[in-house]
Amino acid sequence: MEVKGENAPMDYNGGQGYLQIKSIFSIKTKQDLQEVYTPNVAKLCKTIAKDINNASSYTWTKKIIAVITDGTSVLGLGNIGPLAGYPIIEAKSLIYNEFANIQAIPICMDVTNNDEFISTVRNIALNFSAIHLEDIKAPDCFYIEKELQKNLSIPIYHDDQHGTAIAVLAGLYNCSKLLNRSLQSFKIVINGAGASGIAVAKLLLRAGVSNIICCDKNGILNNDDVQLNFEQKELAVLTNSHLITGGLNEAIQEADVFIGLSIGNVLTGEMIETMGAQPIIFALANPIPEISYEEAIQTKAKIIATGSSEFPNQINNLLIFPGLMKAILDNNIRIISDSLKIAIAKEIADSIINPNEKLIIPNIFTPGLLDIINRAVKNYSNNH
Amino acid sequence: MEVKGENAPMDYNGGQGYLQIKSIFSIKTKQDLQEVYTPNVAKLCKTIAKDINNASSYTWTKKIIAVITDGTSVLGLGNIGPLAGYPIIEAKSLIYNEFANIQAIPICMDVTNNDEFISTVRNIALNFSAIHLEDIKAPDCFYIEKELQKNLSIPIYHDDQHGTAIAVLAGLYNCSKLLNRSLQSFKIVINGAGASGIAVAKLLLRAGVSNIICCDKNGILNNDDVQLNFEQKELAVLTNSHLITGGLNEAIQEADVFIGLSIGNVLTGEMIETMGAQPIIFALANPIPEISYEEAIQTKAKIIATGSSEFPNQINNLLIFPGLMKAILDNNIRIISDSLKIAIAKEIADSIINPNEKLIIPNIFTPGLLDIINRAVKNYSNNH
Repeated sequence: MEVKGENAPMDYNGGQGYLQIKSIFSIKTKQDLQEVYTPNVAKLCKTIAKDINNASSYTWTKKIIAVITDGTSVLGLGNIGPLAGYPIIEAKSLIYNEFANIQAIPICMDVTNNDEFISTVRNIALNFSAIHLEDIKAPDCFYIEKELQKNLSIPIYHDDQHGTAIAVLAGLYNCSKLLNRSLQSFKIVINGAGASGIAVAKLLLRAGVSNIICCDKNGILNNDDVQLNFEQKELAVLTNSHLITGGLNEAIQEADVFIGLSIGNVLTGEMIETMGAQPIIFALANPIPEISYEEAIQTKAKIIATGSSEFPNQINNLLIFPGLMKAILDNNIRIISDSLKIAIAKEIADSIINPNEKLIIPNIFTPGLLDIINRAVKNYSNNH
Repeated sequence: MEVKGENAPMDYNGGQGYLQIKSIFSIKTKQDLQEVYTPNVAKLCKTIAKDINNASSYTWTKKIIAVITDGTSVLGLGNIGPLAGYPIIEAKSLIYNEFANIQAIPICMDVTNNDEFISTVRNIALNFSAIHLEDIKAPDCFYIEKELQKNLSIPIYHDDQHGTAIAVLAGLYNCSKLLNRSLQSFKIVINGAGASGIAVAKLLLRAGVSNIICCDKNGILNNDDVQLNFEQKELAVLTNSHLITGGLNEAIQEADVFIGLSIGNVLTGEMIETMGAQPIIFALANPIPEISYEEAIQTKAKIIATGSSEFPNQINNLLIFPGLMKAILDNNIRIISDSLKIAIAKEIADSIINPNEKLIIPNIFTPGLLDIINRAVKNYSNNH
């Protein structure tokens, strides 16, 4: 299938793709074959039949993780289906391999409802040491994650939620240092109440921020809105303590922080001018941010972050997932709790010795990033 | 988990295991990252969303196959469960890699019934270019294979059935040459009416053999036996044209060929002496054959084959599956029909230029084996 013109993709690594399964045992003789296959393989089978915990020593299952999507909420593209979502999980599997030496298998799910998604993952979960969920639409992603966590004994990690929330919180910690204010004193507006917006709001609440307003396409989340899903309703109750009504225009007045996890071009320079004295703008929609970096720097905004590597302060879950997965596997963590996420965010923030407006967060190429995350997880693990 | 003593398995390649996922694209710069991940990955997603056939060019899915078991019928060990069955599918994945340069992922299924097995495979089938089914108990394996073949557009191959049947038929073709008799003139007794026994019987019928008797633990298959499954009943009707009753003792009298796909030590030297003039003994149970090679050579048996590489004439699906899978993928074959299996068996038999009693079949290390199988599949593909 040849695709030409401006929509043609790049050459996919010269047709090779990004990943390969390679044997690390060479079969040259009959003896080699007897060692890996019959009759010796029966000894491995029997050892595991006796105690399935032996599988961790004598199978590949404890060395591989699965990166799973149903393609229902691919960033910037929406519900494009499982196969069209596959390039994202293949790229993330490659990133795991390149940055954290983790062996990850992309798996797309051709399912039509949440229970089918859950049962399918449960039925194949024995093969993996952890599950990375990706690009699943809200609110389904919350239910799926919760059910899998309840029913499986391996870590379940939904990157769109938790990777984003940890990266945002890490950035905010350094903003609070830079402005010499406590994080808890910030008035924060979150635009976009999907998987990542809701996860960010929840983590900020857990980190002690009380003045949060969440907006979605119908404006400020309102408990009376029958269109809200369960998680949005829950947030509507927990946030907006001043009971402000209206849209983003109203919500953003006098706010200290704008966090955009929505769609491109919904924030204007005029709106920023109505914010507090030193606005912090995290315009994280990808590939088109809520306000372009070029436009944002024309305003009174004090600190600007985007989701792109083109500009200073890229806030992206890319920074989080390779190190976090490696650390939870190395430290035998099963549940990625809110307090663990907060500990990781703090450690990442503190790794920037002299934060400034153009440097509130490391990037994936920052030397030692994995060690920073591992230190946070190890300390947490020692204290829990 | 340390396992000591005589049941301790080997060291599993020094703790490394047998397989590894390696990236074949190195991410060294921000530009590399932009190429494989955001923003460029969105182009791949969009290209596939436009036409899912583009996935074959722009994802890993068309380069990998899955080797799937539920561990319900592991050769020589029985129903030991999915994780205990995993070492077999991991070894077979390694063999695919080493002998045919195929990238195979082992997947064990933690399921409790056939429909759950089928729906789970269907839900993840988009990720693979073919499915190799392994060690699934009969008669479930027949239903599972049939349903998957009906519902999926990729090849489904149950190795215990078809790999074994092709290898047995290839061996028999050379026995018929050696004894200067037509295959169709043989009276053949098959002991063991599980997945492989039934598959062998069916393929022999398709190859024109009419005088077949199948035995199982209750003796000669009998249509009146209420304990028989559907496939066994079907065979009971199609075989035993002389309506012989009784056990293996009765069935084997005057037979030309014994094919054992059952359990160890069920065939005696005395039974062989009751066979025709030049008995052909395929004692294929593993690791303990129906009669030991040492005992069989003391009888009037003319040609002896086992499932082990210790003795001449190893008849094992090992010989078949790497080359067959490579050939059907390379030649875009979706259905592995009986006539294709027969063509492969013939080509393998004919590859032995001067067969003798100790050389009726090549082995997996035979140079050019993959080309032999590929030639058969290519010719078949050109004529169908």
